[in-house]
Amino acid sequence: MQRIQAKANIMLDNKLRQRIEAYFNRLWPLNRSITGQGFRESLAILEEIIPVKRLKFETGRKVFDWVIPKEWIARDAYLIAPDGKKYADFKVNNLHLMGYSVPFKGRLNLEELRPHLYSLPNMPDAIPYVTSYYHDNWGFCISHNEFENLPEGEYEVYIDSELFPGFVEIGEAVLPGDTDEEVLFSTYLCHPSLANNELSGPLTMAFLYERIKAMPSRKYTYRFVINPETIGAVCYLSERGEHLKKHLIAGYVMTCLGDAGKFTYKLSRHGDTLADRVAKVILRDSGEHSILPFFPSGGSDERQYCSPGFNLPVGSLMRTMYGCYPEYHTSLDNKEFICFDALSGSVDMYFSIVNALESNFVWKNTVKYCEPQLGHHGLYSSVSIPKSQQEERTSAILWLLNLADGEHDLLAIADRSGCKIELLISVVRELSDADLIAPKKI
Amino acid sequence: MQRIQAKANIMLDNKLRQRIEAYFNRLWPLNRSITGQGFRESLAILEEIIPVKRLKFETGRKVFDWVIPKEWIARDAYLIAPDGKKYADFKVNNLHLMGYSVPFKGRLNLEELRPHLYSLPNMPDAIPYVTSYYHDNWGFCISHNEFENLPEGEYEVYIDSELFPGFVEIGEAVLPGDTDEEVLFSTYLCHPSLANNELSGPLTMAFLYERIKAMPSRKYTYRFVINPETIGAVCYLSERGEHLKKHLIAGYVMTCLGDAGKFTYKLSRHGDTLADRVAKVILRDSGEHSILPFFPSGGSDERQYCSPGFNLPVGSLMRTMYGCYPEYHTSLDNKEFICFDALSGSVDMYFSIVNALESNFVWKNTVKYCEPQLGHHGLYSSVSIPKSQQEERTSAILWLLNLADGEHDLLAIADRSGCKIELLISVVRELSDADLIAPKKI
Amino acid sequence: MQRIQAKANIMLDNKLRQRIEAYFNRLWPLNRSITGQGFRESLAILEEIIPVKRLKFETGRKVFDWVIPKEWIARDAYLIAPDGKKYADFKVNNLHLMGYSVPFKGRLNLEELRPHLYSLPNMPDAIPYVTSYYHDNWGFCISHNEFENLPEGEYEVYIDSELFPGFVEIGEAVLPGDTDEEVLFSTYLCHPSLANNELSGPLTMAFLYERIKAMPSRKYTYRFVINPETIGAVCYLSERGEHLKKHLIAGYVMTCLGDAGKFTYKLSRHGDTLADRVAKVILRDSGEHSILPFFPSGGSDERQYCSPGFNLPVGSLMRTMYGCYPEYHTSLDNKEFICFDALSGSVDMYFSIVNALESNFVWKNTVKYCEPQLGHHGLYSSVSIPKSQQEERTSAILWLLNLADGEHDLLAIADRSGCKIELLISVVRELSDADLIAPKKI
Repeated sequence: MQRIQAKANIMLDNKLRQRIEAYFNRLWPLNRSITGQGFRESLAILEEIIPVKRLKFETGRKVFDWVIPKEWIARDAYLIAPDGKKYADFKVNNLHLMGYSVPFKGRLNLEELRPHLYSLPNMPDAIPYVTSYYHDNWGFCISHNEFENLPEGEYEVYIDSELFPGFVEIGEAVLPGDTDEEVLFSTYLCHPSLANNELSGPLTMAFLYERIKAMPSRKYTYRFVINPETIGAVCYLSERGEHLKKHLIAGYVMTCLGDAGKFTYKLSRHGDTLADRVAKVILRDSGEHSILPFFPSGGSDERQYCSPGFNLPVGSLMRTMYGCYPEYHTSLDNKEFICFDALSGSVDMYFSIVNALESNFVWKNTVKYCEPQLGHHGLYSSVSIPKSQQEERTSAILWLLNLADGEHDLLAIADRSGCKIELLISVVRELSDADLIAPKKI
Repeated sequence: MQRIQAKANIMLDNKLRQRIEAYFNRLWPLNRSITGQGFRESLAILEEIIPVKRLKFETGRKVFDWVIPKEWIARDAYLIAPDGKKYADFKVNNLHLMGYSVPFKGRLNLEELRPHLYSLPNMPDAIPYVTSYYHDNWGFCISHNEFENLPEGEYEVYIDSELFPGFVEIGEAVLPGDTDEEVLFSTYLCHPSLANNELSGPLTMAFLYERIKAMPSRKYTYRFVINPETIGAVCYLSERGEHLKKHLIAGYVMTCLGDAGKFTYKLSRHGDTLADRVAKVILRDSGEHSILPFFPSGGSDERQYCSPGFNLPVGSLMRTMYGCYPEYHTSLDNKEFICFDALSGSVDMYFSIVNALESNFVWKNTVKYCEPQLGHHGLYSSVSIPKSQQEERTSAILWLLNLADGEHDLLAIADRSGCKIELLISVVRELSDADLIAPKKI
Repeated sequence: MQRIQAKANIMLDNKLRQRIEAYFNRLWPLNRSITGQGFRESLAILEEIIPVKRLKFETGRKVFDWVIPKEWIARDAYLIAPDGKKYADFKVNNLHLMGYSVPFKGRLNLEELRPHLYSLPNMPDAIPYVTSYYHDNWGFCISHNEFENLPEGEYEVYIDSELFPGFVEIGEAVLPGDTDEEVLFSTYLCHPSLANNELSGPLTMAFLYERIKAMPSRKYTYRFVINPETIGAVCYLSERGEHLKKHLIAGYVMTCLGDAGKFTYKLSRHGDTLADRVAKVILRDSGEHSILPFFPSGGSDERQYCSPGFNLPVGSLMRTMYGCYPEYHTSLDNKEFICFDALSGSVDMYFSIVNALESNFVWKNTVKYCEPQLGHHGLYSSVSIPKSQQEERTSAILWLLNLADGEHDLLAIADRSGCKIELLISVVRELSDADLIAPKKI
């Protein structure tokens, strides 16, 4: 049944791509940050697909080693050059204003202004993305071409922003399953006008939610978290960390899922959790890909999920990883950089993981002494013609029967046999229907 | 003593090759199948070298998931074409008749006949080998060249065969040793007029039996099984499976041992049993070879021995594996394809495995604190001349003394040291004679 | 503090090189052997830097499987050819006389003399180094060029040597630490006029001793052994073996440390002891190097330390290993072959091992739930500028915090993170000062 569902979804992909793009267009211009109106409005748009409960953490509250910052709002910001020309206009591109810039109005000459300007000499056309959440400061980000050609003289600096007591907010959704074992998907929503890192993450999650919700039944409970990066994960773990330590069997941080590159999986800290095992099998079956060891020295919220006090089974399935494409954290990570076919494929890939997890039982061969006589069970051509088209299927049958020993789960069978997990899932059904295998009683 | 025996045998190899060929010539024309007269006559010929007890399993008997089929005999079979020419004459080559073809007499035009004809478009000169043991059917196998040139019109089809209640039979021989720990050799005898797969297997086994029988003493009990493939192994395990689970320490399925290719070892399902360890060391010492992981998706009776209910330590030492040479299961797998030097070498290789198994004790260094002063024991030249011929032997002595710690068996020492097992066996004798090592008491 | 000490030492390296060379020049001409005056005089010179206690083992005493040999002294030795020319003059090069040659005076013609002559056809300019400690014999070592041109006729053979009851002697020094866990450095001093193998070993040890002695505090106790190779290690283990089995955590045999080649580490028999782990990390950080598995079939005193009754955690850190450079055990392993910069670097490398061992604690992250807010602790720039110079340091901080879980020691963190151990040691101090990590209580 679930497979039929999956097929139906794939047939809808054209429509899916269009829907993803429409949501992208609405989310793109909002000035998201780790707090504030941009985050809230973005979450509200996503709630049309994935309704979430909102968790709130008040400014000044201590959360583990962190203190919740003030809320930030930016209304306008720009520079007026000595020649009267406007530079770094926030209303043109919200990347021009350094995230969490404190309000400032004044006149500075170019020498005084320069320490507040950020540009990328190696990417002279790109506006960099810079923030200063936890250290009072203000700044403007401009292309290096502009930076180099700024006229000498006195500049009018105008930043109409505000920092005030408020909240860090997190969106959380849960789709219950037959068991209280949980699968977590976590993404972040705090980057303004950046496409691959980050709108690809929340968009993939929203449409993945839609698919999982449509499943007729679920073995596992699915948990979805949309937060501001780092501080949001810290807050979320302060509320749900102990619960997740008890119930989480697999989790994924969703980011950088919209470019045309091959998939990359960053292993969990443990490195061989169920999250890692299923991702490795699914990626193996999908073609060219990369598997990276866990590293805490960079990355996203898996750093918090995999901190030593939690050490949760959380990896991260991406396409081209943050830091590995030059457009990362610049104005060039925009709609032209991403590809809606890739985004739709990312939803498929995550749903394949869900399907494999849902099918990952331990089976026992009911005829464990020697092979069954497959022909009698209608499972085998009794004429041994070399090189039949049935070879791949027969091979999967024989592998399954051999490894259905009550010790290998389906992922282990996929791993050892080299058979595609999708083929194994289909063969499991046939063997189960023929009473040749039965789920292991626990 | 055993080594002297081995040497003597190698000196007789010329005679051995001639004897193997003589037996091959007698076995070749018999129409073997999984039951019947051809199997019985073949076994009777082999009994001149390896006397066996016969186990019988009656038609209709249920054995695990299998039902013993009827016996099959074929007396004659052919096609008469519209032009009066005889095709697919069973008396010319018994591969022309599909194994287990039911009796049939009638007239069919070419269109009706074609579904009963088997040929290989990619090997137009070869007659394929096809059987239909468990599904009533009849058919003829012909070269694709002939198939393409069959004249249109009506054919006389003649198959004088018979299916009747009878027996599946298995030949079993046991050479007892000092312990009830057993080594198994298993081969099959159900293929008509195929040389590498299969006559090479029973021939290697018969002459290996001869050598093991001639050993003055044996630590292990050796068990030899000659059966019809698959159904025979299923039957045999129904009788001896529980015994083997208790006593078997190593076993090998013998097949494809007559071609000129390098050796291939297919690991047991477990992958690191004594059977695997000794085969790996012997092959390492022998030169170029391949080690393959276990797979149940193809292969021979190791699929039954390694089914999850048994999971016996059984691998398969072959030369070029079934399916890996184009002549496999065709009329081109004939006397010209194989090589009697290779067959004789296969007997040697299996006997090397036996020698290594018989020598595989755990030793303890009696002078375990520091090295012994080898010179005092007559084991070391006291003049340290660089690059002497003694280097390899001295190296083996020092490795043995270092690893004779009561934890490494001789195979583990061979593995870690890289020393040839044959050299280690010889050095063990010297060190043991000098009281520098003693077998570990269990 | 220790790091400051290390820096100070490195600044003194120029002086160190000069001091090493001065000691080399004094040690070079002495006719060392496994016993006797040459060994004693050499040890006395080294005692100016590393004061040792002398352990003595009397001739004829049984030590494990060995018997202490007589002492040997050589006063003069040469050949006078038929043409009156002197050959193989011990006073010109003490390698000319085979080590432990018995006294001999007589006249032999060339045919009778030849079995007593050693030369190297492949290295015609080199005098080989040959000994016969445990088998009464005499001999001369000459270049193959000389050997080939020896005139026919009668030779006067003169060997003024003496074998007499005496002692095998061992020098031992101990620098106590805060714990009774010990680190061993072992080297040998029995080769006459050979530079890399062996003077490099005792010289590196002496100056390493000087550095370790200068450390303001030590966690471990350091033990230094200077012995005649093999027999000395056997004797030493007969006295200290049981003690070392209780207390030794890491040990190294120091040899071949003076050539310009890259470092080579021969693993201990166990292969993953603390000695091995620290050496692997230090070498990884140092650049190109080789790691060799343990082998008892050649080598130095690690063969005794790693004999099965002891199986101590002793490896060997060398530059170009014995047997791997053609000059080995010939007159070409001389002052020109070695390089005092390399020797000084070998002292540094061993001291890096000591530093890493002393810093190898298990740490616990005090904020184990999520990452700490590094900015608040003054450890992190809050402006996320891409590619800052701080990246490497921040990476080390994040790795340390993630792996400070009470299970990884610092070497394990270095291994998994890929961060340089020296950087980690420095970051440990910062994190510890900020109370973000604390040593694990045992």
